[in-house]
Amino acid sequence: MKLHELGEFGLINRLRRYAVVDPDQVVVGVGDDAAVLRAPSSKLMLLTTDTLIEHADFELDFCDFFSLGWKALAINLSDVAAMGGIPRAAVINLFLPPTLEVEDVDKIYQGLQSIAEEYHLSLVGGDMTFSQQLGISIAVTGETCSERYVLRSGACVGDVIAVTGDLGAAAVGLRILQSGVETTERWEVYPVARFWRPQPRLHQAQVLQQKLSLHSLIDVSDGLASDMLKLCQASNVGCQLEVGKLPFHPHTDYWAGKLGIALEEVMLQGGEDFELLFTFPADEQKILADLNISVTVIGKIIPPQQGCWQVYKDGKKISLENRGYDHFRAQS
Amino acid sequence: MKLHELGEFGLINRLRRYAVVDPDQVVVGVGDDAAVLRAPSSKLMLLTTDTLIEHADFELDFCDFFSLGWKALAINLSDVAAMGGIPRAAVINLFLPPTLEVEDVDKIYQGLQSIAEEYHLSLVGGDMTFSQQLGISIAVTGETCSERYVLRSGACVGDVIAVTGDLGAAAVGLRILQSGVETTERWEVYPVARFWRPQPRLHQAQVLQQKLSLHSLIDVSDGLASDMLKLCQASNVGCQLEVGKLPFHPHTDYWAGKLGIALEEVMLQGGEDFELLFTFPADEQKILADLNISVTVIGKIIPPQQGCWQVYKDGKKISLENRGYDHFRAQS
Repeated sequence: MKLHELGEFGLINRLRRYAVVDPDQVVVGVGDDAAVLRAPSSKLMLLTTDTLIEHADFELDFCDFFSLGWKALAINLSDVAAMGGIPRAAVINLFLPPTLEVEDVDKIYQGLQSIAEEYHLSLVGGDMTFSQQLGISIAVTGETCSERYVLRSGACVGDVIAVTGDLGAAAVGLRILQSGVETTERWEVYPVARFWRPQPRLHQAQVLQQKLSLHSLIDVSDGLASDMLKLCQASNVGCQLEVGKLPFHPHTDYWAGKLGIALEEVMLQGGEDFELLFTFPADEQKILADLNISVTVIGKIIPPQQGCWQVYKDGKKISLENRGYDHFRAQS
Repeated sequence: MKLHELGEFGLINRLRRYAVVDPDQVVVGVGDDAAVLRAPSSKLMLLTTDTLIEHADFELDFCDFFSLGWKALAINLSDVAAMGGIPRAAVINLFLPPTLEVEDVDKIYQGLQSIAEEYHLSLVGGDMTFSQQLGISIAVTGETCSERYVLRSGACVGDVIAVTGDLGAAAVGLRILQSGVETTERWEVYPVARFWRPQPRLHQAQVLQQKLSLHSLIDVSDGLASDMLKLCQASNVGCQLEVGKLPFHPHTDYWAGKLGIALEEVMLQGGEDFELLFTFPADEQKILADLNISVTVIGKIIPPQQGCWQVYKDGKKISLENRGYDHFRAQS
């Protein structure tokens, strides 16, 4: 059935089934003028928002509807993780072409519901409107654990730079999809899974915050180089990234080779990995071994007048540059 | 200058000047992964979201850029008013055609800034993406005064139904703009001002909540009939609206006559007035005279099995029907 056959109010009623409500958090959920939530137990709350629009941020050829819902919420939860916070509730705005199938809207909501349940987030309302392009815009509230939060502006000269998980997988995953390579089961291809269903590093952020004196924290959304430069600019410091130490998954390496992609380039510029990039005092490095989460030291913070560099094993240095995506220029 | 000439990051830097920050509320505003806000002083917080998309919700022919920013935020603040709450912070998502003039984006933000300052709201972040259609999607957090909030589901048989301000103005205003009637200064035309720059009834909601035992509260966004029916459905009651008592502004009447519009029809079905529709115990009617805000009693709540009616002075009754706008059906 097409959306225009069901109508706006029919659709709203249909989508109520996907509400996710934690009764400890939600006093009034979907259905009134605004949701009523219990205030954070700490004295600080977080608020963030992100949008995915067809043709600008995704192509349906390369992303199924379930994954679109998942990913739209994941990028918001990653922002909460990048503050060292805990997500609580979300409102969802959908932009829907009237000829879209109702079942496809169901799938978007199944993706939203699935990640909301996995990360203990309540879905408490939203809005929908027709649009030529499919899109989804989400706002998430969260809270900080105790009175602490971690900004991107706290890096200090001498800090160690580290990153969770591995890099470059999502960009390689997209290129696998674009290349039309046939695989028996796309889900079994690691980079594709990383592109389709990013995992916000909420648990890792909590562990890091509890065990280390985190000085700065940002998520790798636009690409390691871009996000590292943002962190350095906000903290007024320079950096030295050791390219040889950047972590990658063997399947990312395999597929990059198969498709003729420079692995180093996608690790530095690829983006959408939604890993955590952070800095902490050098004397806490020994703690890393006991963290029980995947973390790799990839460089150090240097004085701002020394600049931002990617360095190689042979001592070669190249100025760190942001060659990430710019929405508006890319479309000109 | 066109947006694609400035670029995404250039635009973000340019728009920072429009941030509105109440230091009592905002710990970290624009520029990190998420905003950090002080938690509500009451134990309850509100969260709501609304969207305006070109062609679906507005046409630029009939709405200037400043008013678009104003209106997008006003409809969210009206939702907070309709819960009896106080707005605190907003995040803004913009959907921008890359060929849009940068100065027009400035005007949207000037509208946002203007209403944010007027209603003591902080603008703490957002996201932007390119899109074929211009659009704006906003999420607002708020708090309740004390532990109280007012739902649409609390109406009781015997309650008086009342509405703030006057009805039908916004719909007549849009028709004035569509008709191409030349006026010396459009801003001097009352219905046009009501359409272009709606005023959320936040102050009125506070007064009503303090002085009356409000049983139910909703804002008139889709039209009196539509919103009254939603209130009745949520409360499981019927209603009797006295058409002869519906409040209108003399300029709305004048322009409706001039354009051949049935005033009664736009008051019942027109929408976008963003007045407050509420019910309270009949024995509190005498309090209304001392409220010092514009309020009109327009009917009463009756048992659900008696239905929902619009009644006339001569005793004629017509079943109350929602002939408001349905996004998806309207576009089929």
